[in-house]
Amino acid sequence: MAKETPTIRPDVEADYTIAEPFQLERGGTLPVTLRYAIYGDMERHRDRVVLVCHALSGSARVADWWAELFGPGLPFDTQRCCIIGVNIIGSCYGTTGPASLNPATGKPYGPDFPVVTVGDSVRAQALLLDHLGVKQIHAAVGGSIGGMQALEWALRYPERIRNVVAVGTAPLNAMGLALNHLQRQAIWNDPNYNSGWYKDQPAGGLGLARALAMCSYKSAELFEERYARNPNRNGEDPFASLKARFDIGGYLDHQEEIFVRRFDANTFVTITKLMDTWDLPADDEPLHEMAKRGVRAHFVGISSDWLFPAADVRRAAERFARARVSTSYSELESAHGHDAFLADSHLITAQLNEVLHGGEFCRILAAIAGSESAAD
Amino acid sequence: MAKETPTIRPDVEADYTIAEPFQLERGGTLPVTLRYAIYGDMERHRDRVVLVCHALSGSARVADWWAELFGPGLPFDTQRCCIIGVNIIGSCYGTTGPASLNPATGKPYGPDFPVVTVGDSVRAQALLLDHLGVKQIHAAVGGSIGGMQALEWALRYPERIRNVVAVGTAPLNAMGLALNHLQRQAIWNDPNYNSGWYKDQPAGGLGLARALAMCSYKSAELFEERYARNPNRNGEDPFASLKARFDIGGYLDHQEEIFVRRFDANTFVTITKLMDTWDLPADDEPLHEMAKRGVRAHFVGISSDWLFPAADVRRAAERFARARVSTSYSELESAHGHDAFLADSHLITAQLNEVLHGGEFCRILAAIAGSESAAD
Repeated sequence: MAKETPTIRPDVEADYTIAEPFQLERGGTLPVTLRYAIYGDMERHRDRVVLVCHALSGSARVADWWAELFGPGLPFDTQRCCIIGVNIIGSCYGTTGPASLNPATGKPYGPDFPVVTVGDSVRAQALLLDHLGVKQIHAAVGGSIGGMQALEWALRYPERIRNVVAVGTAPLNAMGLALNHLQRQAIWNDPNYNSGWYKDQPAGGLGLARALAMCSYKSAELFEERYARNPNRNGEDPFASLKARFDIGGYLDHQEEIFVRRFDANTFVTITKLMDTWDLPADDEPLHEMAKRGVRAHFVGISSDWLFPAADVRRAAERFARARVSTSYSELESAHGHDAFLADSHLITAQLNEVLHGGEFCRILAAIAGSESAAD
Repeated sequence: MAKETPTIRPDVEADYTIAEPFQLERGGTLPVTLRYAIYGDMERHRDRVVLVCHALSGSARVADWWAELFGPGLPFDTQRCCIIGVNIIGSCYGTTGPASLNPATGKPYGPDFPVVTVGDSVRAQALLLDHLGVKQIHAAVGGSIGGMQALEWALRYPERIRNVVAVGTAPLNAMGLALNHLQRQAIWNDPNYNSGWYKDQPAGGLGLARALAMCSYKSAELFEERYARNPNRNGEDPFASLKARFDIGGYLDHQEEIFVRRFDANTFVTITKLMDTWDLPADDEPLHEMAKRGVRAHFVGISSDWLFPAADVRRAAERFARARVSTSYSELESAHGHDAFLADSHLITAQLNEVLHGGEFCRILAAIAGSESAAD
């Protein structure tokens, strides 16, 4: 479906450089420039600014990866709200990351790039919103690492946010930590990685990392439905040699090639680490503050997600509910695994509409219903 | 439990060289020597020979990896039956494999080793049993690739076998094929692999392959229970650097080190391929033959197995049942994932006793019950 949607360009795409060296949570400072994108009219919708947070390989250009949610009557309807996307610290899509030039050396940071956290990106985003004159956001919305940012927003700035929507998001469990560890290892093992000081991408390692990640983003059910035990569609006979592939092998190798062209190995290491280290607060104080301020938290688990199992998402939601935060939990029924927040995003449009446009949305529906009966 | 059990040594451990160059199913011939082990008295239990088939990294020495099933009153009770284990073709534990010397070159076969199948090993095992004078086996038993061999025995030689027990065994689904593909890729990516002509192990690649396999052998539930989001038990702070590990990372790295010392990279490639290519027969003819001969097929699915999901094992069992093979299906309830056939083997002793010793087993129980009441 995404492929059929014409590209929606942001109305604004710009960089914002934080004036002072930015203090990182895990120690050290970093000069930070944030790449952000704005869809719609921020002045007109100052009371309805929606921060949409991206996942591992996403960017500030929300409509590039969540196109199905944009359009009239859809959640990201720029006639009804203003969407802001901000590339996270550590990424390779415009914001300061390992591939950026280190002003101290004039060369890319590479492996010298510090450990950054979800909290770092969220604090930087808050400075950007100050700069843009946005005092309060109507909602922070995201899937996966995007959901981590959205939740972190509510936990840190409950006075600045009304709603948070987190899809397929929970603190990563031991299996998730295991898979991320092995993905980084695949990169580190590649001699082209050269301890992070590569000129050409360590394509083998980064590709393998991506393919393993793809296995964790999808589901066994989907793979079975699409690839089963079929021989590679290129005609290869998987029985002919040790290297000959089944269809799923061809698919994964293809995914590797695409990804290696558009992503950076040090960035992959940095962002999987940021994904690992994110957790909910140890005590409930920030949740109580959310409750006091009336921030609503909406959690969506994905039925076939085994990277962030629905049960983990539900457990997180239950903790918020116990702390008296106004909380909802629902489940996205999909065979797409973790990736469903992108691949089956049409299944959450009604819910997002309700959260983002609530009463207004109901009025629109009523108006449509009225016009229909008038036409009858 | 295995660690507390003293090592049980086989009564016979020997090699058998097949006289003629062995014709392989996928083409070519191979001079084959099989390493086998016998526990118990084959002459005395000629009518109760149990072939126990090993999985990927196992060997002919069944008691080294299935120790809990050996002993008085247990399924592999050498007073009641004779156990034979045979190392599969392609392995590195005594039978001809990639690490064996190629007589044509005087060097290890390495990557020149041909594609071998489960069927090849089973046909070779049949020749060994001819040589040992064993006309019929009471049962073939195995988990994972061992179960594939056991089923293949029944499908090929229904006249020579009474029972087959396959635990956690089904044709590998697309997710399983995907994970095996990536494991081989981890090895191929390692420059020390040198296209298979290594002197020193490609330790990084083989280790990564093993660690990924471990993730597929265990379950998310078990990892969470044991490692959760704990920092590495060696005191490492996972937040300190990109390389610093959580506990699960330390565990996986440790598993890598152990495995690299005891296994061979070309062997790993060869055996994962053999695992990939095994499938049930396209038509039901061999199943009808099993039915006609009265071979009983016992399938055990493992509740938390995501490499060979219980549903896949059940589906295989249902096919046998539909073809009128006397079939049972049961589920091993365990959090250990695929590995439960080893880690929780005590949960299948009663069932194995029933299959292997049926009436006799009941008589023993009755006798014990009788002696107990006599003692009262």
